[in-house]
Amino acid sequence: MRTSRSVILAALVLAPVYAAESSKPLVIESQGSFFVGGERKNSRELSANPAGPGAGEAGDITINQMYVQFQKPVNVGRHVPVVMVHGCCLSSKTWETTPDGRMGWSEYFLRKGRSVYLADQVSRARSGFDATRITAVKLGKAPPSELPNIFMASHQTSWVLFRFGPTFNTAFPDEQFPVEAADELYKQMIPDINAILPSPNPTWTNMAALAVQLKGAILMGHSESGFFPEQAALINPAGVKGIVSIEMACETSLQPDQLRTLAKIPTLVMFGDHLSDISGRFASIWSANFDTCNKFVEQVNAAGGDAQMMYLPKMGIKGNSHMLMQDKNNLQLADLILGWIDDHVEGGKSAHVKKSR
Amino acid sequence: MRTSRSVILAALVLAPVYAAESSKPLVIESQGSFFVGGERKNSRELSANPAGPGAGEAGDITINQMYVQFQKPVNVGRHVPVVMVHGCCLSSKTWETTPDGRMGWSEYFLRKGRSVYLADQVSRARSGFDATRITAVKLGKAPPSELPNIFMASHQTSWVLFRFGPTFNTAFPDEQFPVEAADELYKQMIPDINAILPSPNPTWTNMAALAVQLKGAILMGHSESGFFPEQAALINPAGVKGIVSIEMACETSLQPDQLRTLAKIPTLVMFGDHLSDISGRFASIWSANFDTCNKFVEQVNAAGGDAQMMYLPKMGIKGNSHMLMQDKNNLQLADLILGWIDDHVEGGKSAHVKKSR
Repeated sequence: MRTSRSVILAALVLAPVYAAESSKPLVIESQGSFFVGGERKNSRELSANPAGPGAGEAGDITINQMYVQFQKPVNVGRHVPVVMVHGCCLSSKTWETTPDGRMGWSEYFLRKGRSVYLADQVSRARSGFDATRITAVKLGKAPPSELPNIFMASHQTSWVLFRFGPTFNTAFPDEQFPVEAADELYKQMIPDINAILPSPNPTWTNMAALAVQLKGAILMGHSESGFFPEQAALINPAGVKGIVSIEMACETSLQPDQLRTLAKIPTLVMFGDHLSDISGRFASIWSANFDTCNKFVEQVNAAGGDAQMMYLPKMGIKGNSHMLMQDKNNLQLADLILGWIDDHVEGGKSAHVKKSR
Repeated sequence: MRTSRSVILAALVLAPVYAAESSKPLVIESQGSFFVGGERKNSRELSANPAGPGAGEAGDITINQMYVQFQKPVNVGRHVPVVMVHGCCLSSKTWETTPDGRMGWSEYFLRKGRSVYLADQVSRARSGFDATRITAVKLGKAPPSELPNIFMASHQTSWVLFRFGPTFNTAFPDEQFPVEAADELYKQMIPDINAILPSPNPTWTNMAALAVQLKGAILMGHSESGFFPEQAALINPAGVKGIVSIEMACETSLQPDQLRTLAKIPTLVMFGDHLSDISGRFASIWSANFDTCNKFVEQVNAAGGDAQMMYLPKMGIKGNSHMLMQDKNNLQLADLILGWIDDHVEGGKSAHVKKSR
């Protein structure tokens, strides 16, 4: 009930507040970047250019490290830090300035007093990737079949899969994604090389380690990484104080001891609108994913946990796409998450909507 | 003469100031990220996974875009913005927190009142790359010889080529790079796929466009990108108010009209120490690069320009590596550049060392 009231307040009252807030100077206690994890690998496949440095020589490289960029607000320590991890074919750009130039979640959470950590997934963006298999094939040491499966999402695939509209370049009438800026989203979409990663995915291990390093953190994932917070907690729950999982497929065949582990961590799952309204090969993917997550939430709660499904249309919030952190009402949705963190992770020690006045 | 005095002051007096400065909260007028450039490409080689979305279908992707992350200080507009572009096998991480955890140039320049723009080179990190040639080979549509040359710099290559010491894991006695943190630098080193780029390199075009978009900017490059500011200015000099080129090979066969173009832009070239002190296959690379840049500086000045070579050892600053923005005296070197900007780009409107007191 409280949430519904917050939503209505946010929709009716807070829009001008968002604009004013984003124009105030930002005061930062500290900022920077670092890596989590990483291991040494020796290889002779570091270069296929016979004239280049190190060609043909064995050498060590570092792989499976995770790049993390952070900002801490003044009065750091009042709130639990938030770690945001992007989805398929994207980088941490996901959480920054939206495609149409509005404030993203990373800055908004910071302005709401949270330390924010943006992690580029292992094998993506500033985390780099292990290119030795590609070079081995170029050098004739391995067959082309050993090349990694690299996935590039087309504009056509993204538009429909991200639920901007039922078919490419047609938008839902109530669409919240700023579709006029779709070209700017497409620039964010970069090759996904996760297929080369070992098991367990080093991003999971690194997220768990980061949470410990931060002496407690909320892990947030989206889409491809939506269930990464849970996977990280299953590797080591020690630092995971809360989980925010956005629009993904959930694992529904966890063992009882795994569910007991997750039941100790407050968990929020969020889904947007139009889950069954797209056409073509993806027509049923979102409703199927949604079903798995409803079942997962039930399982965690049956194990004594505190898991909540926020299905936005059911709360009266219509038209949200898969890229809801970039949607036109993205700060309203951020407030829902911040309110949930206050109530479920930080023990209701502050009423979020009140505090922001 | 002025410079030499600044250096001595910096070395003797400013060290405690740096520490105090880095612990003060940072006040930011605005921050965010965006892309420059990018073009649409239609391809059937977007995925080699027959079960994945879009497999085998033709679709559009965006390539050759450049990701840019920025922060603007309060009182923005007093100084010309600075665009920093990293070198080979690296990302914009280059300019952030150093491997041993000190403040990098991006934050320091910001604290000195400059708007700072960090660009990931096209085909690197958050700018993504065109993976279609790799997938074409995996699909059997092209031979392995058409795979891109991808370069991964080994620890062994980096240590010597970056002049941490004469041979791997031995340091020069006066080495300024924090060699105890070399493992953290190695995590920054990611695959370099520049070999797939068309000509001219889209990063040059995008840097020129960014300078225009900013209504004037200083372009800074390092190593692989050291001469990119000049290449950008040769494409379109309109926005390029100053050039800072750090440790690279210089072009010495430019045409008279090209030199006249560059002669209108104040240009600083900086080289560190131990240029001839490394062993092995790279033994002569730095002295050769240094020679080309001395010649280039002469050529620009002969064409009426204002180009300056800062060869640090000659100024009494010893032991600097190739990664001088991460060296232990990195903020002292930043002050040299800031002072040069004040004097040569901004018309001596403020005396940098005085102002920082």
